[in-house]
Amino acid sequence: MNALEKLRERIAELCDLVFIEMLVGWDQLVMMPSQGAAGRAHQLGALARLSHERATAPEIGEWLDELDGVPLEELDSDIVRLARRDWERARRVPDELAMELARASADGQESWRIARENDDFKAFAPALQRNVELARAYGECVAGEGESVYDALLGDYDFGLHADELRRVFGELAGALPALVREAQPRSPRRALEVPAEAQQAAVAGTLRRLGVDAASWRVDVSAHPFTAWIGRRDTRLTTRYSDGDIEALLSSLHEYGHALYERQVDPALERTNLGRGTSMSIHESQSKLWENHVARNRAFAEVLTAELAGGGFAVAPAELHEALVAVEPSAIRVSADPLTYPLHIILRFELELALIDGELAVADLPAAWNEGMRRLLGVEVSSDALGCLQDVHWGAGDFGYFPSYALGCLIAAQLWEAMQDDLGPREEDLRNGEVAPIQRWLGERVHRHGRRLDTIPLLEHATGHALEIGPFLRYVSPFAER
Amino acid sequence: MNALEKLRERIAELCDLVFIEMLVGWDQLVMMPSQGAAGRAHQLGALARLSHERATAPEIGEWLDELDGVPLEELDSDIVRLARRDWERARRVPDELAMELARASADGQESWRIARENDDFKAFAPALQRNVELARAYGECVAGEGESVYDALLGDYDFGLHADELRRVFGELAGALPALVREAQPRSPRRALEVPAEAQQAAVAGTLRRLGVDAASWRVDVSAHPFTAWIGRRDTRLTTRYSDGDIEALLSSLHEYGHALYERQVDPALERTNLGRGTSMSIHESQSKLWENHVARNRAFAEVLTAELAGGGFAVAPAELHEALVAVEPSAIRVSADPLTYPLHIILRFELELALIDGELAVADLPAAWNEGMRRLLGVEVSSDALGCLQDVHWGAGDFGYFPSYALGCLIAAQLWEAMQDDLGPREEDLRNGEVAPIQRWLGERVHRHGRRLDTIPLLEHATGHALEIGPFLRYVSPFAER
Repeated sequence: MNALEKLRERIAELCDLVFIEMLVGWDQLVMMPSQGAAGRAHQLGALARLSHERATAPEIGEWLDELDGVPLEELDSDIVRLARRDWERARRVPDELAMELARASADGQESWRIARENDDFKAFAPALQRNVELARAYGECVAGEGESVYDALLGDYDFGLHADELRRVFGELAGALPALVREAQPRSPRRALEVPAEAQQAAVAGTLRRLGVDAASWRVDVSAHPFTAWIGRRDTRLTTRYSDGDIEALLSSLHEYGHALYERQVDPALERTNLGRGTSMSIHESQSKLWENHVARNRAFAEVLTAELAGGGFAVAPAELHEALVAVEPSAIRVSADPLTYPLHIILRFELELALIDGELAVADLPAAWNEGMRRLLGVEVSSDALGCLQDVHWGAGDFGYFPSYALGCLIAAQLWEAMQDDLGPREEDLRNGEVAPIQRWLGERVHRHGRRLDTIPLLEHATGHALEIGPFLRYVSPFAER
Repeated sequence: MNALEKLRERIAELCDLVFIEMLVGWDQLVMMPSQGAAGRAHQLGALARLSHERATAPEIGEWLDELDGVPLEELDSDIVRLARRDWERARRVPDELAMELARASADGQESWRIARENDDFKAFAPALQRNVELARAYGECVAGEGESVYDALLGDYDFGLHADELRRVFGELAGALPALVREAQPRSPRRALEVPAEAQQAAVAGTLRRLGVDAASWRVDVSAHPFTAWIGRRDTRLTTRYSDGDIEALLSSLHEYGHALYERQVDPALERTNLGRGTSMSIHESQSKLWENHVARNRAFAEVLTAELAGGGFAVAPAELHEALVAVEPSAIRVSADPLTYPLHIILRFELELALIDGELAVADLPAAWNEGMRRLLGVEVSSDALGCLQDVHWGAGDFGYFPSYALGCLIAAQLWEAMQDDLGPREEDLRNGEVAPIQRWLGERVHRHGRRLDTIPLLEHATGHALEIGPFLRYVSPFAER
């Protein structure tokens, strides 16, 4: 085998290991008997160590050196380009730091869990301090030419994005959204729709079937938190959850479907290569948000959802369902936020994590800064740290630079939705009939098929002809304020 | 880390990989959407390659050499002993032969599947010929001092057993059983019990619950063929299948439970070492056969099964259920054979595979030899190769030396059952009440806890005080002939 063949074989193996990790993780959350947890931790640890070892092995560097300057076909050239980027990035992290990060992440999540239960930020502060310091050390190792430490962290989720760009975009958004929130608030108290769990379940199953979810290559299961696992191109598993009197499942199942469709529509030629998956967290989130915000929350699609709910024995008028799905109500909690206030939750987290990493905010001052930010951005008084700065696991797990993708996903989804309608015309008539094939095709062609060949911003520009911008998102949410 | 620590760490990793393979295999048969098959083959291939590479790595030999002659504690000494045996055995097989074996196994299974569907032995013959030759080549590599090629193949499943010993034991059995079969035949036509699938399902769930199967560390699912997966000590998954008018599930669920209990009761100190699993295929099969033959088919335990069936809405008298569970009826098919005729099916396969490997039987002559053997041993006329020598996948998969464990399991189960009753007294009264804790404890103490520290025959002698013998099995089956 020549160097290219050896490299491609190793990459295929690493892909297989990623799929196996996905499966083992899925099983843990969906199928595993609870007492399997201790063994499972060992199994996941072994997989992570093996993957890391195989991904950072010195022979990869030798193959890459052999391939340096060799003329390659376009696909192979992209494979080698990404292989060098990934390998060099991974090699910059000393094994000891990598192990320390993994340990601190496990410890931090446990510390966070207990602290949140007891609403005791002080108990969590040392773990958070350790995570901040380790993330800084990691960022310093990984940072490329001209990159800040935070940029380097961001690069794990969205390669090529910079904190400066986020400051600009999120700054504009933080300037525009609060006024809309104030405008919306008195007019539209959230309408609770008391939909029984079985009716939701029937509606979710029926809606997903219309979108092409079949038993031959999908699973739909229940888990404590909705998520999606892709275990190869034709084995996609999404989960949701149902509780009486909550319509979250209608949104979250479409959200997860968006993630799933992205992975399924990557060009088959990229399968088992380092290009054969979604390119970044923010593009991934744009796909889930597109189906959540622009399909599930579309007034026309409410016709489909109500028909499916009726099939499950629950009658509601499309207009009423739609009202419930788009009602604006500022609250302290990110995961249940409405589409208008959601990005403000993220902007707060971005500001704070950036300040923590840059050393401009001390860990001890986090709760006060959080509560001040919630007041400033959302007009919300935070009643406890458990419902405030302790609500998310991310920082406990050592994940800094991850939050921005949630808001970027909202912005990019809106940009794609406008670009798609410029191309295909308004989608309302199709959506009223549950016809989504043109949407699937457009996304496949403009976004999905490229896999990792294009990074976030080049992909966005390729798909929409525009740089990252907030206009489309503001046009999407404005009607929710004006209702 | 010193050599012992490095060795133990590598062994722990290999254990984790085995558990992951178990999980990935379980998922494939129980949960995976059908179109996931192609990706799954890649994933399983990657795991097998990695496991093989890590298990045969040269550094293991270096660690073992460093440990040579070093005084060790008893447990470590056993770990090192088995590590050397496993490593040396695996190293004797050239990588190219290992890959060729894997390919031939995959091809052979596919060829077998098609040949069986079309009842066309000739179409399968070339694949079988290739498998026989490769098995011979493999056996020649692996054979130790004074071992025949077939002995070497046997050693993968039952280390320390020899063909000569099997010839002796199976010869005695082949001398004794046919007369019992002839005696039984006219008197007890098999009674079909028409038990609805839901009643079986309720009875299986209720019976397993009595044996300690709880949701916290077990799963019970449905699959095309019953099997058991152990994914760590506290995550045990057994499967069964239900069809209307068939009581197989009552037997097969207890059979799988026997496999499961063995793995769960290995000494916790052996966890994630090379000693921490069942020692051989025949001992494993003795555990499943003990629960199938000596518990599920026990007249007293029929009281429990009928009570559980009644809970599922099906009324039957214990005596009648027991009759159905022990009825003798010679047939062409191994997997549905009664306890009396079952070992004869295995003896035939042993004779034939030994002759194939030794070159005394040509592949082309297999069907005639099969049909002759069925007549001689069972008095059964075989109507087609599909129901004859094509009925099992084993030879298509390249598995030679595996079949004997099925019959040895029956013999060893009967030996253990007698030894247990010598120790604990008759089990009938307890079984009538579903009380199995003393059985579980006795098996745990005498058999399970040792893991791989004792090989098949030493373990049998340790547990029963006797060598391998056929008397207990004959005493077990004789009443079925006399009914």
